[in-house]
Amino acid sequence: MEEVIENDGPFIMVPTLSVRNGISAIEFYKKAFGAIELMSNISTDGQAVAELSINGARFVVADEAPEYDNYSPETLGGTAVRMGLQVANPDQVAEQAISAGAKEIYAVADQHYGYRLGRILDPFGHHWEIFRPLH
Amino acid sequence: MEEVIENDGPFIMVPTLSVRNGISAIEFYKKAFGAIELMSNISTDGQAVAELSINGARFVVADEAPEYDNYSPETLGGTAVRMGLQVANPDQVAEQAISAGAKEIYAVADQHYGYRLGRILDPFGHHWEIFRPLH
Repeated sequence: MEEVIENDGPFIMVPTLSVRNGISAIEFYKKAFGAIELMSNISTDGQAVAELSINGARFVVADEAPEYDNYSPETLGGTAVRMGLQVANPDQVAEQAISAGAKEIYAVADQHYGYRLGRILDPFGHHWEIFRPLH
Repeated sequence: MEEVIENDGPFIMVPTLSVRNGISAIEFYKKAFGAIELMSNISTDGQAVAELSINGARFVVADEAPEYDNYSPETLGGTAVRMGLQVANPDQVAEQAISAGAKEIYAVADQHYGYRLGRILDPFGHHWEIFRPLH
């Protein structure tokens, strides 16, 4: 059974990104990264949560809820976790995200620490490092 | 070759956590989660960066560097990304982390949205949701 294999297999990181305007953020991540929705829920007051997958890399996007210590980068004035996304072709992935509205912080290039990597800022204040190992 | 398989395979999330006192944080994550070091570097001025793996779930821990927009939760007064960690036995993983110094925000329990999940706050201000799917 797949369930048993999954539970006995490697552990998996599934970060949750707090944002303002969750509905727009979900649409952005679909356009920017080709993310697909594994689950989503929008409450009657418009608060959204969705689990997304970017070619198998899972993450969750949810409207911020400061009463539960879930703050957006806009509320905090920054973020304490950068989203590293290991992909097959970082140049192509970063370019698509920038076309969708992300801002380039630095271009994808070969880095001395062994990755081809670039950094972008998405419209919701989250930072992404798009990379692949060089060797 | 493993390298080719990796690059052609699924994408992978590898978040980077900014912290104060990176050297202590790396030791904490080893003790709390049984993380192993895949790479680490400590500069002459004591700034640390390490790539860690918790049973295959990779992440990076690095000293904050506000000049590069890398802020710790302590500097920001919170965090905009919660670290979801899918494991085989969330009760056991959360208990070990709490024994190592994390604070329980809520206990691991069956949640209506389909996960057995609890939330903890680590000594460096990062939030972790430790979970497994219920079905």
